[in-house]
Amino acid sequence: MKTFRNENQVRKISIGTCFPTDTILDRSFSEASYDTEAILEICDLKTKVLLKFEMSDADCVYGLGENLRGINKRGYQYESFCSDESKHLPGKTSLYAAHNFFIIHGESNLGVYIDFSGKINYDIGFSCIDEMSILVAGKDFDIYLYEGTLNEIVKQFRQSIGMNYVPPQWAFGYQQSRWSYENADIVREIAKGFETYDIPCDAIYLDIDYMERFKDFTVSDERFPDFRSFVDSMLQKDIKLVPIIDAGVKIEPDYDVYEEGIENDYFCTDIEGNPFVAAVWPGKVHFPDFLNPDARKWFGKKYHFLLDQGIKGFWNDMNEPAIFYSEQRLKETFEWLKAHENTNLDIYSFFEMIEKVNGLSNAVADYKNLYHKVGTQRVNHYEVHNLYGYNMTRAADEGFKQFDENQRVLLLTRASHIGMAKHSGIWTGDNHSWWEHLKLNIQMMPSLNMVGFLYSGADTGGFQDDVSPDLMVRWLQFSLFTPLLRNHSALGTKMQEPWRFEEKIRLQLRDIIRLRYALIPYLYSEFMKASIQFDMLFKPLSFEYTSAEADGVEDQLLVGESLMIAPVYEQNAKGRTVYLPEKMLLWKASAYENINTSQLEEVEAGYHYIKAHLNEILIFIRPGKLLPLVAPMDRVSKLKKNELSVIGYGSGYLKYELYEDDGESFDFKRGEYHLSILEVDHNQVVKSNNSHHSLKNQWIVRA
Amino acid sequence: MKTFRNENQVRKISIGTCFPTDTILDRSFSEASYDTEAILEICDLKTKVLLKFEMSDADCVYGLGENLRGINKRGYQYESFCSDESKHLPGKTSLYAAHNFFIIHGESNLGVYIDFSGKINYDIGFSCIDEMSILVAGKDFDIYLYEGTLNEIVKQFRQSIGMNYVPPQWAFGYQQSRWSYENADIVREIAKGFETYDIPCDAIYLDIDYMERFKDFTVSDERFPDFRSFVDSMLQKDIKLVPIIDAGVKIEPDYDVYEEGIENDYFCTDIEGNPFVAAVWPGKVHFPDFLNPDARKWFGKKYHFLLDQGIKGFWNDMNEPAIFYSEQRLKETFEWLKAHENTNLDIYSFFEMIEKVNGLSNAVADYKNLYHKVGTQRVNHYEVHNLYGYNMTRAADEGFKQFDENQRVLLLTRASHIGMAKHSGIWTGDNHSWWEHLKLNIQMMPSLNMVGFLYSGADTGGFQDDVSPDLMVRWLQFSLFTPLLRNHSALGTKMQEPWRFEEKIRLQLRDIIRLRYALIPYLYSEFMKASIQFDMLFKPLSFEYTSAEADGVEDQLLVGESLMIAPVYEQNAKGRTVYLPEKMLLWKASAYENINTSQLEEVEAGYHYIKAHLNEILIFIRPGKLLPLVAPMDRVSKLKKNELSVIGYGSGYLKYELYEDDGESFDFKRGEYHLSILEVDHNQVVKSNNSHHSLKNQWIVRA
Repeated sequence: MKTFRNENQVRKISIGTCFPTDTILDRSFSEASYDTEAILEICDLKTKVLLKFEMSDADCVYGLGENLRGINKRGYQYESFCSDESKHLPGKTSLYAAHNFFIIHGESNLGVYIDFSGKINYDIGFSCIDEMSILVAGKDFDIYLYEGTLNEIVKQFRQSIGMNYVPPQWAFGYQQSRWSYENADIVREIAKGFETYDIPCDAIYLDIDYMERFKDFTVSDERFPDFRSFVDSMLQKDIKLVPIIDAGVKIEPDYDVYEEGIENDYFCTDIEGNPFVAAVWPGKVHFPDFLNPDARKWFGKKYHFLLDQGIKGFWNDMNEPAIFYSEQRLKETFEWLKAHENTNLDIYSFFEMIEKVNGLSNAVADYKNLYHKVGTQRVNHYEVHNLYGYNMTRAADEGFKQFDENQRVLLLTRASHIGMAKHSGIWTGDNHSWWEHLKLNIQMMPSLNMVGFLYSGADTGGFQDDVSPDLMVRWLQFSLFTPLLRNHSALGTKMQEPWRFEEKIRLQLRDIIRLRYALIPYLYSEFMKASIQFDMLFKPLSFEYTSAEADGVEDQLLVGESLMIAPVYEQNAKGRTVYLPEKMLLWKASAYENINTSQLEEVEAGYHYIKAHLNEILIFIRPGKLLPLVAPMDRVSKLKKNELSVIGYGSGYLKYELYEDDGESFDFKRGEYHLSILEVDHNQVVKSNNSHHSLKNQWIVRA
Repeated sequence: MKTFRNENQVRKISIGTCFPTDTILDRSFSEASYDTEAILEICDLKTKVLLKFEMSDADCVYGLGENLRGINKRGYQYESFCSDESKHLPGKTSLYAAHNFFIIHGESNLGVYIDFSGKINYDIGFSCIDEMSILVAGKDFDIYLYEGTLNEIVKQFRQSIGMNYVPPQWAFGYQQSRWSYENADIVREIAKGFETYDIPCDAIYLDIDYMERFKDFTVSDERFPDFRSFVDSMLQKDIKLVPIIDAGVKIEPDYDVYEEGIENDYFCTDIEGNPFVAAVWPGKVHFPDFLNPDARKWFGKKYHFLLDQGIKGFWNDMNEPAIFYSEQRLKETFEWLKAHENTNLDIYSFFEMIEKVNGLSNAVADYKNLYHKVGTQRVNHYEVHNLYGYNMTRAADEGFKQFDENQRVLLLTRASHIGMAKHSGIWTGDNHSWWEHLKLNIQMMPSLNMVGFLYSGADTGGFQDDVSPDLMVRWLQFSLFTPLLRNHSALGTKMQEPWRFEEKIRLQLRDIIRLRYALIPYLYSEFMKASIQFDMLFKPLSFEYTSAEADGVEDQLLVGESLMIAPVYEQNAKGRTVYLPEKMLLWKASAYENINTSQLEEVEAGYHYIKAHLNEILIFIRPGKLLPLVAPMDRVSKLKKNELSVIGYGSGYLKYELYEDDGESFDFKRGEYHLSILEVDHNQVVKSNNSHHSLKNQWIVRA
């Protein structure tokens, strides 16, 4: 890799007149020239630009946010083009997001952000093992170059895109979802299940069937009669309901959202200027033009319909935007089919037919026939594709602020782009109940953090396909640490609420969920400190430890300042290899009630095979660090956060900086939060600077 | 797990009057009663039978032959129903084979073979973590129960199904394939590529385009003019051509195979007794009725058309049988489509459409409408589905014997069933260029060996999707050991012949292929000894080492008597963890020319992280063992097999039993082979009982 010979740590290269993406907030960069030494080559192709970077044998490439493959992205191709990719197969190059930030990490480090909202293709040592080439499908973009340590680079980049989204604190609790809990009775049964089996839960999701024929901002009267009272009855149990919102607005006369959109020209158009007709859940829809500020404001305000009824959170789906089919494509496909109906379909024509039908969805030609109105300008959607989901979510967030500017609302979204992290968290989309997707979940967390998606997590247990009991346990043992902890599964798959499993497994799942609640003081503190300091919650080992060994670790993560985790993600594994960059304290966690010093064991630096039975979680406490814990309760709100226990590893006084705030307002943005310094020696809490913490239990091992 | 309280090591339970499957040759079993203690429960359902087995926490389940998931099959569901499964995703339950043999391995071991050719579903701790339940979709079958050590159980079972297929020795050389080398010029270019880059190769495959419009036993005059001379010109270079054969026979008047089949009633029929119309490569076809001995004989003889022209090997494809569509299903689908053409397709009806179209292929309803004639009886295909590919391959093998009863012919097949291993090798079907499929390949080899498929291997580099350079290298480093070593890739994917990669990678690939030729004396010896002794070539560690640690190893294999391998199967990995059940000698192999003692290192028993750069292969030599090597040549036939080198690990005299035969006849079946005892001390070959071996080099490390 070439490196800077320059004093400036951050530089910007403008290739053209960039379409305003609103991704970069901090614009104080020095301008770099076109032929900066950091880039091997910039080739000006006819309508595209090719960038090349050199990689040495030992270099790792981190970043690209939500994407396939490992922590180190070398050896494959990727595409930045938000895509409703429902399979997440190793051969795919794109998921729902476009996160054009990466770091080449070697003897020195180079961070690169490409501010462009069209398609970008990456070839990171795929065609040539030591070369990274990037094809930008346009000529109007900026490149930002960052230098420093890995942590410095991320911090600089994150500062420039603004502070990340912070959800209400209850959103750190366990959340239960399924496509679908399709009526009020079923939702009640689910809530009852958590009571019956004494399992904590803070939220239940409403997937598409809560709506009246999949129309945004409607509730089916038949399925959810008197919705407001129903929401209220759940809130009385301190269970929040989280409904889904689709990007597409159903075409249906007299449906208010449709009528208003038409009346005000709020919908995207086709080449001829008519509202573009696509189909998603309700069948035919129009897409609100979220690049139009008026349309954004209008759509954002629509969320008030549900906020008014006591809703505290939403998930924005299908906003790549996903297109099942367009009217035109469907017509063409039917014509092809009819022309071939009575022919002898052989291997080539048969697969052409299969591809035609499967290719109905998310066709590039449809995106190219979709237009936005930005000011007086018509902008082709294909060129700014990756801004769509971002701006839908921005609309929602701005709508929430209009409803109550100081109230945090849970917001998740599927499609995302750099800069969107200001507005929302994300879930990682429609994964499968595959061990491979648990591994993908583990490996994706740091790169999501790099681009500001701190509030994120995967569908725990897997959305599609049937989960096995051991996969459910192992996945939950990892999601234990992700700020978003949601169990979600698809129509037609095995039910995967904790009590759908045999007793032995159900009790293990309960123990893990309870451990999650015990960890909330730590997770929330680390999340908030990372947010305020533009830091990451999940880090690859190489961000804190400098060695070839640390660079090579793809399946362990640092979680906040005190922990390193080594999840088990292989079926039937009764342990795993762990690399310790330094001596640490291993806590083989199983249940909050079981914590005792016999579960704590010092492990020397180096590689070790460590046993982990199905009910054991490998958590390592770094030297000199404390892990605060609280006694689990069935809701986040009930946690007695001033009665803490600690596990610690080190000599003398051990310190931990505990973050606390009201958990629901934005007052923290004005500095209204508490940072309590917990200092613990081997006998007691020595000091807490706001002195309201009492120590219940402590398990300290002297280093 | 329940165990026998019985003296008998093998017992048979007959549930009904079994349809003759010809899988079991050795019928000398004692009859066991219905309520044997080994089985927890046998439930007589209305048209099915449910078997249940107990598993303790520590038990592993091995077997099921060609299937998804790990060496230990616990924690998932499987289906025995030969299926053209083109994705091999973790959520699938069936591949191309039905291998109903498994072993529950714990404090004692229980082997189980279910002799049934219809559908069987396995739930191995998927629904209930400690229970295995097996649903047999019929009531006429036999169960065989085997007791003993793991090796004894496999040996007993294998003896009962007969000696496995043995290919000509040249089939241990490197083989190059692609869909397609579509004409003679391209095949010549490929052969030339191997010459130009000095890479060994023994065979080139001909995929579907060599035929005249996909008709079995035809050659396209246009693409391969004067085929006989062309084959001959390749044979003069000692390159064997291996054409593909489809199970379906094109419906085309005047095409001899079609006409003869119709005339003699050799095709499968539908419920009304008309030849069943399915579609595969050529479009509409009939399926030869391979369960009819006359049809089998007729079809087997058809191979002579190609044998006559100098062809030395074949691959039988699509013999599950795969059905792209049936006439009737296509018609129904088109009707559904037309009825929905102008409706508003919403999420449910749109996905119904997608499923209808994708569900055209391999529909159970089609298999249920397909009939065989067995003697005077009409047999529904669905009930004996898994016998189809088996009997196509049997037809081919019997045809070869008729052509020349003492000449080995290379034969691979896709669909398979227990007992077919007598007739053919298999490749593991249409995998992808995914690291996950390299791992699957590693994990599948022992279970294939258990059911007799010793001559097998995967499409190295992956069939579908584009391969990365490092995956190509790592995969070849594993396939180095599989008897079938074939590089195969699909239409539309990146070309993956060794010289399609940059020089650095090409040279590494060449080194690995040359190492393969160096290993042939060992691999062939171990293959043949395992064949004769009903043993396995690839074994999980637990077959030779008794410990919980050995039971847990899912990514290392014993290969023959001298070696343990630890393949690297993760991208960007610069090493891996290895478990050594005892002290062994590590050979970090890179190229034959590089072998020297600095590449040899003793490694203590236990878990170790061992570095392995992209060009390094981790091969462990077991204590007291020798590994014979020969100098690589560009063809198997040119290897100077009496000039051997050895790597050894141990004290005093080290022995190795080298197997040799003519490599092309079946004379070995009459005992006509040589077993030379190589005895080596630290200085020389001390003894070779047929004394024609000279020692070129030796690298011996004293234990």
